[in-house]
Amino acid sequence: MTVQDWQDIAAGKKQAVDDSIPPEWRLGKIPSVEEVRNAREFIEEALTKEEREITNLPIKELSGKLASRELTSVAVTRAFCHRAALAHQLTTCCSEIFFDRALQKAQELDEFLMKEGKTIGPLHGVPISLKDQVNLEGIDSAIGYVSLVNKPKSKDEVSNIATILEDAGAVFYVKTTTPMAMMAATTVSNIYGYTLNAYNRKLTSGGSSGGEGALIGARGSLIGLGTDLGGSIRTPSMFQGLYGLRPSSNRLPYCKVTNSYANAPIICSVIGPMSWDLDALELLTKVVLEAKPWLKDPKVPPIPWRDVRSTYPKKLSFAMLTGNGLGRLHPPIERALKLARQALEAQGHQVIEWAPPVSVVECRKFSAGVFSSDSYKEIVDECSKSGEPLVKAVFSLAGTSGGLPKGVSHIHEHWDQAKTKYEYQQLVDAYWQSTASETTTGRPVDAVIMPQWESCSFKPDDLALFSRSYSVATNVLDYACVVTPVTVADKYIDVKDESYIPLNDHDQKLYDYYDAELFDGVPAGVQVVTPRYEEERALYLSSVLRDAL
Amino acid sequence: MTVQDWQDIAAGKKQAVDDSIPPEWRLGKIPSVEEVRNAREFIEEALTKEEREITNLPIKELSGKLASRELTSVAVTRAFCHRAALAHQLTTCCSEIFFDRALQKAQELDEFLMKEGKTIGPLHGVPISLKDQVNLEGIDSAIGYVSLVNKPKSKDEVSNIATILEDAGAVFYVKTTTPMAMMAATTVSNIYGYTLNAYNRKLTSGGSSGGEGALIGARGSLIGLGTDLGGSIRTPSMFQGLYGLRPSSNRLPYCKVTNSYANAPIICSVIGPMSWDLDALELLTKVVLEAKPWLKDPKVPPIPWRDVRSTYPKKLSFAMLTGNGLGRLHPPIERALKLARQALEAQGHQVIEWAPPVSVVECRKFSAGVFSSDSYKEIVDECSKSGEPLVKAVFSLAGTSGGLPKGVSHIHEHWDQAKTKYEYQQLVDAYWQSTASETTTGRPVDAVIMPQWESCSFKPDDLALFSRSYSVATNVLDYACVVTPVTVADKYIDVKDESYIPLNDHDQKLYDYYDAELFDGVPAGVQVVTPRYEEERALYLSSVLRDAL
Repeated sequence: MTVQDWQDIAAGKKQAVDDSIPPEWRLGKIPSVEEVRNAREFIEEALTKEEREITNLPIKELSGKLASRELTSVAVTRAFCHRAALAHQLTTCCSEIFFDRALQKAQELDEFLMKEGKTIGPLHGVPISLKDQVNLEGIDSAIGYVSLVNKPKSKDEVSNIATILEDAGAVFYVKTTTPMAMMAATTVSNIYGYTLNAYNRKLTSGGSSGGEGALIGARGSLIGLGTDLGGSIRTPSMFQGLYGLRPSSNRLPYCKVTNSYANAPIICSVIGPMSWDLDALELLTKVVLEAKPWLKDPKVPPIPWRDVRSTYPKKLSFAMLTGNGLGRLHPPIERALKLARQALEAQGHQVIEWAPPVSVVECRKFSAGVFSSDSYKEIVDECSKSGEPLVKAVFSLAGTSGGLPKGVSHIHEHWDQAKTKYEYQQLVDAYWQSTASETTTGRPVDAVIMPQWESCSFKPDDLALFSRSYSVATNVLDYACVVTPVTVADKYIDVKDESYIPLNDHDQKLYDYYDAELFDGVPAGVQVVTPRYEEERALYLSSVLRDAL
Repeated sequence: MTVQDWQDIAAGKKQAVDDSIPPEWRLGKIPSVEEVRNAREFIEEALTKEEREITNLPIKELSGKLASRELTSVAVTRAFCHRAALAHQLTTCCSEIFFDRALQKAQELDEFLMKEGKTIGPLHGVPISLKDQVNLEGIDSAIGYVSLVNKPKSKDEVSNIATILEDAGAVFYVKTTTPMAMMAATTVSNIYGYTLNAYNRKLTSGGSSGGEGALIGARGSLIGLGTDLGGSIRTPSMFQGLYGLRPSSNRLPYCKVTNSYANAPIICSVIGPMSWDLDALELLTKVVLEAKPWLKDPKVPPIPWRDVRSTYPKKLSFAMLTGNGLGRLHPPIERALKLARQALEAQGHQVIEWAPPVSVVECRKFSAGVFSSDSYKEIVDECSKSGEPLVKAVFSLAGTSGGLPKGVSHIHEHWDQAKTKYEYQQLVDAYWQSTASETTTGRPVDAVIMPQWESCSFKPDDLALFSRSYSVATNVLDYACVVTPVTVADKYIDVKDESYIPLNDHDQKLYDYYDAELFDGVPAGVQVVTPRYEEERALYLSSVLRDAL
């Protein structure tokens, strides 16, 4: 295959996605980032009143109106398709668009409801967006590789979780962009280029679920599925003011979801929901678990949905991590943590410091070795099939800024990585238990609040400036966590601390990167972290924080 | 280190174990296998009436009498110590003997009960034996390696499960032999030689939990902990007429239990109980789970003990696997399956055939590659520390009769093994679900009944004759299973089928190995297999089979 070939395939694919937008929804000219900075606001104006209302409904109201036939599934689907089409044109968030199929399905749901007098399931008529990895029949799962373009998935390859959601009544209408191989905290590939932030098109949507982040951020979707190996659900969620659940390994079924390093056993990617509506996260998680996914996915532990709300007393205790010792957080993130602390304390909850025996920086360093243990052979091999070059951003997870990472030299070195992970988990778990001696509740802290990222986002090429430590630490420890939006950057409030003396050149560079004008209006949030397989608790405590704020 | 050195260390260790038996409990002369074939019967005669009664009490009566102070913990411990001392002299089942410490602990428990008027926990005063891998402070965990002799474990290294059991009142008094590295279905090391079968000292106790098997088989213990990577709990249990629970991965905490290939991630060893009393298995499992082991062992999924009895209707359905296509089962094993089928059918349960899409032979072949993926580097390296040679039996798990196995050449080959395992699990799980169309209950079969081994045991050097397929298949699939005793070989009933035409030379050799005289009186049992993490169901359905018989 010649170099020309891969470029043709990539360009053809991108064009095909763009062409699948109905002419009446196409923007005559895509406005420049200078002309339109905030995609969400722009889109809000471009919709009819009904479309605007539908696409801003929280899940309970949306599903209620669908069930009561106040809204038809076709009207709801059409509104989200229109909004997604606009979001895509402004942010490049979609890797696949299949509105016709969605409207057909919506029509069937309307007929079912009319005829049977009942919904098909709890998600009847709810449009759900899917990260490109989720396999649907007849549609590619190219995950940012040119080599995987035009290789639609068969019926047998459909992802378990897609089947569960569809059985519950969900309508699929788009799949969303990922960086090449999902191996970056920004979303860029040789097929689609960059996916931009829905709140500020000068910035990245984050990654690797950056397509979902931008789409849901622009309200082109109410709820979508992302995946998370090192922060890939949470970073785009945080950058776009969304809630994002990173479940513990295999709590939700990953079976038949296309993946990089699908069988690498030490730290595994997880699948989970993203939404601006926390209730939507809870509903989706509950629907999936109530389908008993462990019967069809051998990796899913048989832990049913547990309603934990009533098991918690009024007064809770939290720990908070406010830094990693490497570089100062940007003012909006510092303020988000402060607001979270104040809000929780105002409700009578306790907030103590979090000082684990294994730092987030150690976790980050360790993870880089794990993620590159094959010296990126899988990525190199896949790229060589089409001739496309590796995108630069994928080197970041491996901890190199370019040049292939070293990898392990013997299988025992790989097993030693498994050992290190287990030791880290034991140490931090024991520390967590030990916090019982510091809390007024007598229990270990109920959750840990920590940053997700040092900044609200970053310009597409500046990924290497950030530590990715807060993000990946919870993957190494395999804790359940929900990124929770707290505030938005405000150029008048979030001003730089001019008296701050940076720790070193890196810290200086990182802190200087903060530009109050650039980040103005971009969301800032935190992670609510709970022990392994405590997804119900993470969702509940995220709601406690939301309500306190 | 010279060759002489390792032999001295090994001989010194064995002698030290023998010397820790109080003189009054030593046999003047160890009878030959010709003089005393059945260790259990011999011991039964050598005890006082009280010792005999105590060591034959089922768990409910034993713990009841301890709690009511009808029996003191000291009396119970002393009876089991005496019986274990005799069992060791006849079968070489103990790797560590620490009766003084046990009696001291028993004394404390008696005082506690006297003073406080209540027991310390549900295992108050119950002696529990431990496979050599379980770490106790001040005691070796040599796991059959000369290099690990005289390296007692520290307080920080004590196994989580040992702490849980001790907190519940258990008294530890012996640890039991394993083959070198636990990597064989027979128990032999350069330290202790062979561990013999409690029912027939001409035969092996099985392995790798062969020390537990022989000890409990001889009633020198009521309940003990074994581990199982490829059948290591179940084979010795079957060979000695015991119940043995192989839980799914990490249902019970393996944390800080010394292990071979401790961090190899694809098929992992599990820890579980063995006993001649099924209630004892259930009690131990329940006690461990009620201690919430997931709080201290990050690998344990947070699945509490679930009481499933009431969830099953009266009529159940089972599937049965009666062969592997490689070689005919010996007459007592064939009869055990037939008895199980008849007993279940007589109770109105249905028994259909089990014909999974991945055969037990395929699982066996696959597992050999996984178990030897490092080309036995770990074992070779450990042996080279002392200079001892690899024992021949350890080659069996790798599928070679001698000579190091090949191992994987690249980390991707190892990941492909993970992929294969996952695919096998998906295929067999789906088949299991599909049995609903064949059952009269409308549910998938509640359990699968299958052989554990082709024979009731074998002579120490004849391991290579057996397929190990029934045994290891459930490890690959990670199903929960309980080996359940059914009958004992009877030379008058279990006669060879002289009309049988063997499939091939191997089958001929295997079937010809059956010797009605040799196996007479040795137990025969089956596996009761349930889906992943259904330990409660496996225990319950084992009791259904027991009661039907």
